Amino acid sequence: MRIVEWRERTVPLDGDVRNAVVSFADHTVSIVAAVSDQRRGGRPVVGFGFNSIGRFAQGGILRERLFPRLRGADPDALLAGDGRSFDPAAVELAVWDLEAKLRDEPACATIARAAGRAPTPYPVSVYAAGGYYYGDDSVRRLRAELDGYRALGFDAFKIKVGGAPLDVDLARVEAALDVAGAGSCLAVDANGRFGVEAAQTYGRALAPYGLRWFEEPGDPLDYALLRQLIDGYAGPVATGENLFSAADAENLVRFGGMRPEVDVIQVDPGLSYGITEYLRVLDRLEAHGFDRTRCFPHGGHLINLHVVVGLGLGGCEAYPGVFGPFGGYAPTCAIGGGTVAPSDAPGFGLEEKPDLASHLAAMVEDLA
Amino acid sequence: MRIVEWRERTVPLDGDVRNAVVSFADHTVSIVAAVSDQRRGGRPVVGFGFNSIGRFAQGGILRERLFPRLRGADPDALLAGDGRSFDPAAVELAVWDLEAKLRDEPACATIARAAGRAPTPYPVSVYAAGGYYYGDDSVRRLRAELDGYRALGFDAFKIKVGGAPLDVDLARVEAALDVAGAGSCLAVDANGRFGVEAAQTYGRALAPYGLRWFEEPGDPLDYALLRQLIDGYAGPVATGENLFSAADAENLVRFGGMRPEVDVIQVDPGLSYGITEYLRVLDRLEAHGFDRTRCFPHGGHLINLHVVVGLGLGGCEAYPGVFGPFGGYAPTCAIGGGTVAPSDAPGFGLEEKPDLASHLAAMVEDLA
Repeated sequence: MRIVEWRERTVPLDGDVRNAVVSFADHTVSIVAAVSDQRRGGRPVVGFGFNSIGRFAQGGILRERLFPRLRGADPDALLAGDGRSFDPAAVELAVWDLEAKLRDEPACATIARAAGRAPTPYPVSVYAAGGYYYGDDSVRRLRAELDGYRALGFDAFKIKVGGAPLDVDLARVEAALDVAGAGSCLAVDANGRFGVEAAQTYGRALAPYGLRWFEEPGDPLDYALLRQLIDGYAGPVATGENLFSAADAENLVRFGGMRPEVDVIQVDPGLSYGITEYLRVLDRLEAHGFDRTRCFPHGGHLINLHVVVGLGLGGCEAYPGVFGPFGGYAPTCAIGGGTVAPSDAPGFGLEEKPDLASHLAAMVEDLA
Repeated sequence: MRIVEWRERTVPLDGDVRNAVVSFADHTVSIVAAVSDQRRGGRPVVGFGFNSIGRFAQGGILRERLFPRLRGADPDALLAGDGRSFDPAAVELAVWDLEAKLRDEPACATIARAAGRAPTPYPVSVYAAGGYYYGDDSVRRLRAELDGYRALGFDAFKIKVGGAPLDVDLARVEAALDVAGAGSCLAVDANGRFGVEAAQTYGRALAPYGLRWFEEPGDPLDYALLRQLIDGYAGPVATGENLFSAADAENLVRFGGMRPEVDVIQVDPGLSYGITEYLRVLDRLEAHGFDRTRCFPHGGHLINLHVVVGLGLGGCEAYPGVFGPFGGYAPTCAIGGGTVAPSDAPGFGLEEKPDLASHLAAMVEDLA
């Protein structure tokens, strides 16, 4: 059993929006296809993966460095010990998809088996992330945006802060609370914008609202800032989407003052070093007393849904309004009552997302 | 004044050697050329830069992401406030070279001016790094290698440890000490190989030799390991070559137990985010009580020589035996008595290194 070809396709990301720090207008995403020599229904079985959305594609490094390494590897080195399945430790997300398809099961089942556990019962908690800055009339637009998410079946929300003066941001928070109904249903995300004084100022201003969490207050690596904020902020603090390794995650909980019973870890398996490294992240977090239900991976898409279900994490995010064709879930994923569930499609089920399916098909249409 | 073209060329790195962790046999380096619209001697002035050696080229991300961003930028945004010089903060090493050439001065003078200081008087301290694992007969070969470096004018050396059992490594250290003459003239480098127990075991075994430093004992991000080692190891510990930002460097000294009067910081301006970020690294280190003479950047080449002289750092390393055509210095850099000095060539003087000059010439031979 062999992976006979690797392909990459760079796709622009939808969404001309911005948070406190970046615009997403020019972002792109690499889709990777792992073409196997196995056939199902007369066609080669192909695994698809992409990394986190809201960054940039990696076509160059994939074609110049990773694909040649994979082609040059001993083919048996890409197989698990039994020689009858691919080992995703070698090449990650596209191989998880491929391996799940070869087993004709959803990726969450494959991931759970690899972790020695049963998949979490469906559905799992999901919240709608959005609330970007659009420009004029943003409070009215924000309210309409969140009303729209509620109509789609979401009952918890996250909006951006830190891209406007504090009084404007507080007006946005209060408008969002009107829709969310309770602080526990609304999180805010500063995207790492603040220094320690601004983070503490926002912390004091936000504390009375009893929010779901205050996300990424400062530089992702500024563990001292985080500890100083947490010393004076009783509510949950969430961070970790811009940490990439188990070593980084361990430093976060060692030095950042993160509280196992309170705070939220958002390391993203796709944006960082894959599901294999994410398993190591969970090991380190659990060694420091964090339950895995404190983990809500950044990146609202099908891949992380299967990770959340497969590993029993706290829940998913979703970007219903932006980050297509990667963001969001397939129509077959029943969203409602603040929850989401994977379908029983093999693999990550990316082919069930119509706006993504055309890109996937274009990558493999020449395969006999 | 404009940069009218960006070019990249990927060049294989010489040196089929290994340390405790990696083989360098397949490594490559990107040379970047910044072609200006300015002319000197009838030819366009071109700045050259490369990043650290002993890693991989970045042709894909340069061509797909960085060059398009630079071409798309407002040309004035690449100029300093006076509009008459390029601002390296935007595009880094190749622009430092270009800007120094436009001023007809060595890059160390340009770098020193940007930092508001005078260049350090030449020459500066340099040590020879090598002592890799070659296979059979490595102790005899090691001794011959260091003898060769001494004949070239070096009087301090660094060798690898951690790629062999402790007793073999100690035999290598003792052979190297025969050549070095004193522990203060010999450093050892574990390239991040050890867990905390192995690091402490090596620390106890190495302590009696009074070595110049014990480099990168564990994972570059494992600040807790570093602190535990340092608690029981009185000699200097060196690390930082695999930290890339001012935030990382600050975490190192905040959480790693690094001692301002004892330990050594090896953040590499090229391997990390450039000289501009390196200036921020120095600011953070000085705020934590470290003198800049505690900094010995990783990466023994002309670019870091100009950084060391321009910023008054502790000294340089050199790889006389490996990492050509990038590693090492030009024949015009007088090496002797354990010191090295830049020539008065404009820029980094990369054109004075014969094995590199042909690559640089090939990148610009078509320019009128």
